[in-house]
Amino acid sequence: MAKQAKNAISPTRSEDYPEWYQQVVKAADLAETSPVRGCMVIKPWGYAIWENIQRELDRRFKESGHRNAYFPLFIPMSYLQKEADHVEGFAKECAVVTHSRLEADDEGKLQPAGPLEEPLIVRPTSETIIGELFSKWVQSYRDLPLLINQWANVVRWEMRTRLFLRTAEFLWQEGHTVHATADEAMEETRKILDIYADFAEEFLAMPVITGEKTEAERFPGADVTYAIEAMMQDRKALQAGTSHFLGQNFAKSSQIKYLSAEGQEEYAWTTSWGVSTRLVGGLIMTHSDDDGLVLPPRIAPAHLVIIPVTPKEETRAAVLEYCQKLQKDLEAQPFLDGRVKVELDDRDIRGGEKTWGWVKKGIPVRVEVGPRDMEKNAVFVGRRDRAPKDKEAINRDEFVGGIGALLEEIQNNLLAKAKAFRDEHSREITSEADFVEFFTPKNREDPEIHAGFASVGFCCDPELEDKIAKEHKVTVRCIPNATADEEVPCIFTGKPGKRVVFAKSY
Amino acid sequence: MAKQAKNAISPTRSEDYPEWYQQVVKAADLAETSPVRGCMVIKPWGYAIWENIQRELDRRFKESGHRNAYFPLFIPMSYLQKEADHVEGFAKECAVVTHSRLEADDEGKLQPAGPLEEPLIVRPTSETIIGELFSKWVQSYRDLPLLINQWANVVRWEMRTRLFLRTAEFLWQEGHTVHATADEAMEETRKILDIYADFAEEFLAMPVITGEKTEAERFPGADVTYAIEAMMQDRKALQAGTSHFLGQNFAKSSQIKYLSAEGQEEYAWTTSWGVSTRLVGGLIMTHSDDDGLVLPPRIAPAHLVIIPVTPKEETRAAVLEYCQKLQKDLEAQPFLDGRVKVELDDRDIRGGEKTWGWVKKGIPVRVEVGPRDMEKNAVFVGRRDRAPKDKEAINRDEFVGGIGALLEEIQNNLLAKAKAFRDEHSREITSEADFVEFFTPKNREDPEIHAGFASVGFCCDPELEDKIAKEHKVTVRCIPNATADEEVPCIFTGKPGKRVVFAKSY
Repeated sequence: MAKQAKNAISPTRSEDYPEWYQQVVKAADLAETSPVRGCMVIKPWGYAIWENIQRELDRRFKESGHRNAYFPLFIPMSYLQKEADHVEGFAKECAVVTHSRLEADDEGKLQPAGPLEEPLIVRPTSETIIGELFSKWVQSYRDLPLLINQWANVVRWEMRTRLFLRTAEFLWQEGHTVHATADEAMEETRKILDIYADFAEEFLAMPVITGEKTEAERFPGADVTYAIEAMMQDRKALQAGTSHFLGQNFAKSSQIKYLSAEGQEEYAWTTSWGVSTRLVGGLIMTHSDDDGLVLPPRIAPAHLVIIPVTPKEETRAAVLEYCQKLQKDLEAQPFLDGRVKVELDDRDIRGGEKTWGWVKKGIPVRVEVGPRDMEKNAVFVGRRDRAPKDKEAINRDEFVGGIGALLEEIQNNLLAKAKAFRDEHSREITSEADFVEFFTPKNREDPEIHAGFASVGFCCDPELEDKIAKEHKVTVRCIPNATADEEVPCIFTGKPGKRVVFAKSY
Repeated sequence: MAKQAKNAISPTRSEDYPEWYQQVVKAADLAETSPVRGCMVIKPWGYAIWENIQRELDRRFKESGHRNAYFPLFIPMSYLQKEADHVEGFAKECAVVTHSRLEADDEGKLQPAGPLEEPLIVRPTSETIIGELFSKWVQSYRDLPLLINQWANVVRWEMRTRLFLRTAEFLWQEGHTVHATADEAMEETRKILDIYADFAEEFLAMPVITGEKTEAERFPGADVTYAIEAMMQDRKALQAGTSHFLGQNFAKSSQIKYLSAEGQEEYAWTTSWGVSTRLVGGLIMTHSDDDGLVLPPRIAPAHLVIIPVTPKEETRAAVLEYCQKLQKDLEAQPFLDGRVKVELDDRDIRGGEKTWGWVKKGIPVRVEVGPRDMEKNAVFVGRRDRAPKDKEAINRDEFVGGIGALLEEIQNNLLAKAKAFRDEHSREITSEADFVEFFTPKNREDPEIHAGFASVGFCCDPELEDKIAKEHKVTVRCIPNATADEEVPCIFTGKPGKRVVFAKSY
């Protein structure tokens, strides 16, 4: 049990945050890099988290009237060019399909053959292809609103990739909607933003700021981009989801028109919005500690593990039977809209290795049961939101009856802890000098650990924003919705400004 | 109501079966062709069927110990070449990615740029890339069996495509497993085949024959391929799912080895298996009639629709309220592992148009409620497994209480009808002359309507099989498992043979 003396993950967060992240992902067996540049493999424990994200978001999308559909993986090259900003944003990094088969050359080596008349792009996002189809689906005001979502893979040829956070291929959902009026499209854009924010807080226990992006960070082709922004434990911001009001830009480039009730032909208004497997990265970095992954119960693939402690052969069968009965009783307990999910780890390996394996996988509750616990009708319980050594004996039936409440308590604790961390590293800053001080690495022990979120008055001048980004490596994460109506003087220019959040970001 | 005099779909099955299929898909709004050659768009009603297929299969895979994961979309070109039969099978039709960005030329026209060192193939199936990863995941006998499934899109550059049945891009699941022994791998292969067959019968109400493929129809790289084969209404066979025993072929080409309990390094044994959106095509062709789609309740996106009949303005509000209450009560009724799913169609369009719209969409039960039904506390019920005009008045509360049983009755009827159809068009044939007679088009009114399934003794000689395929356009669909032990003389050569099923196929 030598490992209990130190932490399970090396390096620790304070020693080397980026490497700590990679090691947490590895130790929890969530994902790994693949032989294909920039593409990751999502392993079962990581994919089960993504399935839980999908299930809950899908439920919320359907409840709010959206329906799923599926559109082609490929986009004709010419489509990308229809919207000027859009092509600018996506042409620089995309997978281009140019051939339709392989042929062996004289030396028996395969070569691309069957060149295509028009190259195809593997979708980096689907506005252009979906726009083309929507222009046929939408004819009359009776066809509106059209509320569609797609679960899919997309590809952006990123040069610097990191598991979950930035990969060439990633999984996501992309919503695409069409409305008769600007107001309705804007209402949809903000409704989705709220769904994202509520989901992040309620399920991922990840507090987020909702707000509008400045011009520099807007989606290519959007009039307005909203985002949810979360603070990671290195105090950098993670953009965890975006919702775009596209105005009539794509309606015009794709000719999405409808006949109004008054018989007029009108251009429609569209929105698009998405979250991706990046959410898993945000989840990891919000809660995990130097012992590995920490999972909020509502998103965990399993809620608790039972570990039979059977040092002596003669009590083995009885302990195992006791554990199986315990599992059955726990699995009968309700949690969320389902039941408590229980793993029984009866693998024939050392107990310490087993326990630390589950700590590193982030399972919310560990239950150890040995012959003496069994005699006392007790279980020995460890919680992932407390130190690994901090375990307590609980009466078995009390534990079973209270498991739902315990899981909710852990969920709430993790959210409260993440909120407290964010608040602790958020400052209201009123002068340029304080701003520079706040974001200057020399004032902190580790230059890789950042200052946090600075809430400041800013005139939102794009050139000034660009200059600040270059000088201090920080950007405007958003103009928070909560204070969007405030008028505050710009701390750099003294001009009238908005309240914005500056931070370093992923 | 002119439409009620004739059928809703034109042409009918007997007039032009392939065109009837396209029109059913269109009338039910299931899918459409896209501007990208060979790629389809799956529309919400069609996608909801696929989601139901996914949900139930996923449940069965997980229940039998499989876990989901996600692997890269791209496969390096050289990987495909590792297994000789495999590259032979897939190199001829695949999407090849050769560039990583687009650049505007002097005329502002986009051109592929950033050529890749090694071209990438969009996965047509993932044995080679998953094999590469499994070779790292599998080290010891303790790591086995490894039971993984992936839900994904794949691309095969098909020249002749048809919605759902054969498309360049399609959605599927692909299972990939690794085992310590040949027996265990074979057991897995057959277990999955049974899952497919049970699912097809129990949910799609599509009876299937399970059996082994002959060499000619084997998966490229497999030692044994099993399939489920269903009969469509043109009496052609549809291969609806396959399960492959891959022997040690991919273990050797990908170096999947494990250390046995005895400390020996051994090559593992692998399997792979898949079903795709093609199942939706099979579903359509098994049950639909000349009025459009017919959906078995267990797979239908919604089980019933309530259509308020409100000819007079003054009773409109009361009828609508009555219908809303009816919807609520129906939605409280259990069906399968959930509840009855109800649509209330209060659109302001003609009643006939509404009714026929739902007939064409295949909804299992239609309920019409007018002011007089309301007074009598009755509902007017039409079932999709009966003629559209065949409706009956039922006491409202009796109907609500009996809805679960009614849906099961419809489900069972559709399966029984499909089984009867298949049996009616299946023959045991004992001579070459009868075989030729059975498959010769001149003996039937419409050469496009085929003879059905011929059960014959066959020596399984590949050259003879090829000759028969060319002469009669029929192939061995499978060697049915149910009679695999029988020794029967070949009707062509008199040599000892197996009992096989010959048919025309999709």
